[in-house]
Amino acid sequence: MNEFEIIDHYFKNSTPHRSDVKLGIGDDGAIVRPPKNQWLVVATDTLVSGVHFFPHAPAKAIGHKALAVNLSDLAAMGADPAWATMSLTIPNINESWLNEFSEGFSALAKQYHVNLVGGDLTRGPLSITVHVIGFIPKNGILRRDRAQIGDDIFVSGTLGDAGAALQNIHHAPDFLLQRLNYPSPQIALGKNLRKIAHAVIDISDGLIADLGHILRQSKVGATIEIDQLPLSEALKSLSPTLDATELALTAGDDYELCFTVPPQNTTNKILKKFHCTRIGRIEQQSGLRLKKKDKTPYQLKNKTGFQHFI
Amino acid sequence: MNEFEIIDHYFKNSTPHRSDVKLGIGDDGAIVRPPKNQWLVVATDTLVSGVHFFPHAPAKAIGHKALAVNLSDLAAMGADPAWATMSLTIPNINESWLNEFSEGFSALAKQYHVNLVGGDLTRGPLSITVHVIGFIPKNGILRRDRAQIGDDIFVSGTLGDAGAALQNIHHAPDFLLQRLNYPSPQIALGKNLRKIAHAVIDISDGLIADLGHILRQSKVGATIEIDQLPLSEALKSLSPTLDATELALTAGDDYELCFTVPPQNTTNKILKKFHCTRIGRIEQQSGLRLKKKDKTPYQLKNKTGFQHFI
Repeated sequence: MNEFEIIDHYFKNSTPHRSDVKLGIGDDGAIVRPPKNQWLVVATDTLVSGVHFFPHAPAKAIGHKALAVNLSDLAAMGADPAWATMSLTIPNINESWLNEFSEGFSALAKQYHVNLVGGDLTRGPLSITVHVIGFIPKNGILRRDRAQIGDDIFVSGTLGDAGAALQNIHHAPDFLLQRLNYPSPQIALGKNLRKIAHAVIDISDGLIADLGHILRQSKVGATIEIDQLPLSEALKSLSPTLDATELALTAGDDYELCFTVPPQNTTNKILKKFHCTRIGRIEQQSGLRLKKKDKTPYQLKNKTGFQHFI
Repeated sequence: MNEFEIIDHYFKNSTPHRSDVKLGIGDDGAIVRPPKNQWLVVATDTLVSGVHFFPHAPAKAIGHKALAVNLSDLAAMGADPAWATMSLTIPNINESWLNEFSEGFSALAKQYHVNLVGGDLTRGPLSITVHVIGFIPKNGILRRDRAQIGDDIFVSGTLGDAGAALQNIHHAPDFLLQRLNYPSPQIALGKNLRKIAHAVIDISDGLIADLGHILRQSKVGATIEIDQLPLSEALKSLSPTLDATELALTAGDDYELCFTVPPQNTTNKILKKFHCTRIGRIEQQSGLRLKKKDKTPYQLKNKTGFQHFI
């Protein structure tokens, strides 16, 4: 198969066809019809073999995750996903790998009605860059830099699961491996937060690192009550072999949302419906404080959040 | 510098700010306002070190080219460039490299009023994926699959220059190196072709390969008159050391446009203004024929066009 045959076979009709796509894969560019009276959110993320995933990770999981991490960015903006492009760089042609990879990507695309409209296939060290475009109403913008003093801090789902799987990739319980390999972008929650939250971010680099972006960009501080951190039963069952609290605070790859909510909205039923947990409060004093149940400070043991270059 | 400082320093305000950008670099996604009554064209291309450029190519040229090859795709769609995102994967932090790379990217972005609105910075083998979005009027769509029997085939500029530089990277004349390192996307020509051309493609993989896409997708054939191929003086001066005709037919990286024009439009002054040359004709008989001045067939010596996987 040459590159054009691969694109035709594995990608051209692998995702839902949307009626707002006027010309999809197969030309120099794709043509799409933007919605009236809405704005567009664009986001892009790259996964590099050996950096973002193990070289021998299941191809289906890589395909899923390449799209999921991007949809997670749209979720954090409260956007409705619409179109995607993918640049796939592979060292050689492995048809069974391509088949599984495409399956993982397509299944998630179907779930969120995302149309893959274009891309690029090149030879080189394995890496995948996906670019997504979604829609938001003009009055529904969610940003990182809008946290206000007195807001409560919430997170969705449970934290540290993916990090626990990473630390013990060969013997992790299935639930944790699933969390690492097949993260669920919080699209529905993101859209519901448009009218509830002040500031939103997705947790890709770890709670402390990502909440840190909210704090710095909003010019506020916060206290986290570490006993409130939502932990899965699977993660707790590995304690004390693994330090669940540390993982919940610092491990990346969970792709849950972290967001701040003004006091009048903290009883909104959406928060319960989407299994969101209050973990702390936005404060005037800059910096991030970690507090135990007995009000004494919690001392962080690890570095805070994944960074590509330090 | 960590990844966020690099993004702030080298990329955040490196390109023109457009008023249709509501939120640029620094959040989970960027927010842009789509134009009314126009459609969007999206395109993406990846450059991998050692595949698309020499590892020691000037960083400024790499930055220029990463955007140029994408703008060239928009040119082939007749689109007006607007927004870009960039995923940059680098093995380590080299500030002078980043500075030059950013300069090359920014200079071209300024020229076409392109706003870099987001991206991703990761550690890994050097590669760059750029994604661009442009606008087209609803009635001005240019596609590959609309060539009609009797159309004349044109190309812009001169062919084979980048290929000649690649074959002789250390001793190529400056003009040819400039053509290889700093290709000019044919945006203005593309927009003018909306009302003149039937089918358009950009020449990235070589004339024969790229015209081949037009022929297959339009279900037609063609004859090229090889003596009509536009050759630069610099390329001709290297003959017979280099086979200029072969390069013009098969070498990639020129980023000129190849397009077909119905007979009634072949005298349009736009074609002369943009230095376009008639090189052949679309025919009913499928396949591509190469003909010499004396009407005898020209026999191709090399393989036809760059393919990543054969």
